[in-house]
Amino acid sequence: MNVDYINPFVTSTISVFETMLGCKIQRSGLRTKDRREAEHEISGIIGLSGRVVGTVVVSLSAETAIGAAEAMLGERPSEIDDDVLDVVGELANMVAGGAKTQLEQYELNISLPNVITGVGHIINFPSKVPLICIDFDCPWGPLCVEVGFTEQLAAVATA
Amino acid sequence: MNVDYINPFVTSTISVFETMLGCKIQRSGLRTKDRREAEHEISGIIGLSGRVVGTVVVSLSAETAIGAAEAMLGERPSEIDDDVLDVVGELANMVAGGAKTQLEQYELNISLPNVITGVGHIINFPSKVPLICIDFDCPWGPLCVEVGFTEQLAAVATA
Repeated sequence: MNVDYINPFVTSTISVFETMLGCKIQRSGLRTKDRREAEHEISGIIGLSGRVVGTVVVSLSAETAIGAAEAMLGERPSEIDDDVLDVVGELANMVAGGAKTQLEQYELNISLPNVITGVGHIINFPSKVPLICIDFDCPWGPLCVEVGFTEQLAAVATA
Repeated sequence: MNVDYINPFVTSTISVFETMLGCKIQRSGLRTKDRREAEHEISGIIGLSGRVVGTVVVSLSAETAIGAAEAMLGERPSEIDDDVLDVVGELANMVAGGAKTQLEQYELNISLPNVITGVGHIINFPSKVPLICIDFDCPWGPLCVEVGFTEQLAAVATA
């Protein structure tokens, strides 16, 4: 996998957390992963398409999502409600948007963010698409960003 | 919601099942839905972006997914393995691709399909995006297609 894809997502995630949430996070790990492995409880997912096609997933524990929602909304939600889900979707949207500006050569468009809930949910990527998971140290709790891109489907998808 | 968005997904789903799987299905219902409601066990999800942004979800029970994989691969999988997941992702890709050709005016690009597994998983849409669920009668088992589109985020997403 071309690592040029990855760094923009690392810097974008760090920047979104700092500027939008006032929260300093740092990268703690980078791993390839088996496609059938659950990450955290709440996952914001968003597609990108252009000269390549891909997906970005921002996966957070419930406490991380509530911390992010408190920082963005100014009030601590007592549970994972619609406001928290919208915050997680907006985080995925901003992380993808920040990376997109650093990946101009791929002429990417961003789709609509969706938020997957359900303990143990797994977001599988097509088996031929290499998948990278970036872990972050975050004061609120577990957080990772998964990125998978391929050039192979772009020709079909934009045909 | 503009219903012009919906019919291309109905006809595309029926056409993909007939031409790719040799399976006749028909629309049995059309409903707006609460964003926090689980559909079936396996969901292929794919984003579209252009003059509007949206998501299409093809949600199937395990038996429907296995029936589709058997029809596409010529052999009946004994469980939900990587091949079945790839078939579900490819179905979502083809349903989106077929609808895209009928929605030329929106200049849509299709992103990468992902497949969500985990009983009880919920795919939440942004709270301001109207969500339509199309149910189909399928001889293999339960099947529905969810479609959510909005013009509001397109300007931001493509900025």
